[in-house]
Amino acid sequence: MDIKQYLQEKKKIIDIALESYFLKFSIHEDQKEVPPSLLKAIHHSLFSGGKRIRPILCISAYEAVGGRGEKIIPFACAIEMIHTYSLIHDDLPAIDNDDYRRGVPTCHKVFGEALSILAGDGLLTEAFKLMSIPPNDGNEALILELIHEIANASGISGMVGGQVVDIESEGKEVSPLILNYIHTHKTGALIRTSIRVGAKLGGADQETLNAFTHYGEKVGLAFQIIDDILNVEGNFSQLGKSVGTDIVKKKVTFPGLFGLEESKKKAKELIELAIHCLSSFGPEVDPLREIAWFMISREY
Amino acid sequence: MDIKQYLQEKKKIIDIALESYFLKFSIHEDQKEVPPSLLKAIHHSLFSGGKRIRPILCISAYEAVGGRGEKIIPFACAIEMIHTYSLIHDDLPAIDNDDYRRGVPTCHKVFGEALSILAGDGLLTEAFKLMSIPPNDGNEALILELIHEIANASGISGMVGGQVVDIESEGKEVSPLILNYIHTHKTGALIRTSIRVGAKLGGADQETLNAFTHYGEKVGLAFQIIDDILNVEGNFSQLGKSVGTDIVKKKVTFPGLFGLEESKKKAKELIELAIHCLSSFGPEVDPLREIAWFMISREY
Repeated sequence: MDIKQYLQEKKKIIDIALESYFLKFSIHEDQKEVPPSLLKAIHHSLFSGGKRIRPILCISAYEAVGGRGEKIIPFACAIEMIHTYSLIHDDLPAIDNDDYRRGVPTCHKVFGEALSILAGDGLLTEAFKLMSIPPNDGNEALILELIHEIANASGISGMVGGQVVDIESEGKEVSPLILNYIHTHKTGALIRTSIRVGAKLGGADQETLNAFTHYGEKVGLAFQIIDDILNVEGNFSQLGKSVGTDIVKKKVTFPGLFGLEESKKKAKELIELAIHCLSSFGPEVDPLREIAWFMISREY
Repeated sequence: MDIKQYLQEKKKIIDIALESYFLKFSIHEDQKEVPPSLLKAIHHSLFSGGKRIRPILCISAYEAVGGRGEKIIPFACAIEMIHTYSLIHDDLPAIDNDDYRRGVPTCHKVFGEALSILAGDGLLTEAFKLMSIPPNDGNEALILELIHEIANASGISGMVGGQVVDIESEGKEVSPLILNYIHTHKTGALIRTSIRVGAKLGGADQETLNAFTHYGEKVGLAFQIIDDILNVEGNFSQLGKSVGTDIVKKKVTFPGLFGLEESKKKAKELIELAIHCLSSFGPEVDPLREIAWFMISREY
């Protein structure tokens, strides 16, 4: 399979769905209901070159277990909205104080801090609004379960918790246990959940769900280690954001704790393990296998 | 009925439920899952003397239509969590820059900006996590509908939208239409929804829901006008927050646009109208009537 083409096709589906969700606020009877500046700030961050890796993993897992049709799309989009809100808030001066992301100025550099805080709040809330549209197909209990799982992965015992430990660990000597907490919570939890949500909505049995969950955990951790490596080795034009910032901010990172070579080895090992988790499946999980391999090249 | 005792009793129920929701993160197997500082910041804002007016209205509406038992509690608590997150973010230096609320230093004065942004994000996310616990009683479609309504009232076409227009209107001459937008969205939407959610979960018929909705709209607007009046006429020891700040920040307020006397007249009129909306009901709506009257005294 052509993984680049696959990623492009899925990205397009997500982009169109996200665009159409927010477009309705500016053209319908809702016209006067949403301040245009707020929509602009949301649009700026939502369409500034995001790779859509989480929603793509969600859709891939859904289709791998036999899920068909569009009912996965609201969940895939909601996960991307939650991811985007977290970036807007992370970039704020009070937190990571980043000026660029994906090659464009961060939300607060363009729209100011107040609007950026509120754009993040709005994105997070709209994610839950989108997921809670009742499907009227008898699947309401499952939908609730998925919303609950996504909230759990994003909340204080998930992403938000990881972000707190991340900023509290800056400049400190921390144990590998703390580094693992940061990575599995700040980045890992939502990636793992993206795959689980796709699998659950697609009707996966428990054994498949377990295998996909393990795949998601490995891939999620590898993703963050690769991100850490690129912050040391990458350059602005490749990443679209400032590099070397982790060292300046004294962030706890995998290369910081174990060195670059060990980190690269670990990332590759994790990707191999992730693919191994899928060994009992056939070509239906090829996209998940290819995404894992592609991740380590990080050309997307 | 003794309304003060009623409010105290309901407040206690909500306080205990909120306390127990967050307590489980610090004593269970989740022990290492949530950073203690994050729990402290959330606790600080959640238990700093909030009047619980929104969850009380939610429970009152639920019981007025015959709702019994505890299934309203997660929704009442979630609404208070959403309200609290909005206060934490509103108080931030980049937005309203308030040092005190309810007589105690605001979250960012105690825990810093970064942790306050994340405590707000955490509260908002946990609200949806709490509401989406599947009830397993065949009511899943209704639960989804309520989550959707609450997200709608809190999102970009509700509370967040109102907050954006509020800060963008500072120092500007705005029309009564804009003032109305700010009040109905920033404060009104969640109050209205608190009552609607209680009524819906309690099994209200459409006519009752309509009457309660109108009651909620009047009460929500009156609440904000009274808040505006108190910002001019109140004092710190009575309100627990700085007064006169609206004038300093050049906020668009009801007294600013129409004067104090006219504002007081309007608030009283709205309370009377709210109670009039309930005229076809019997003693079962007495708490809603009494809360409306009590509101105008604002002794709570």
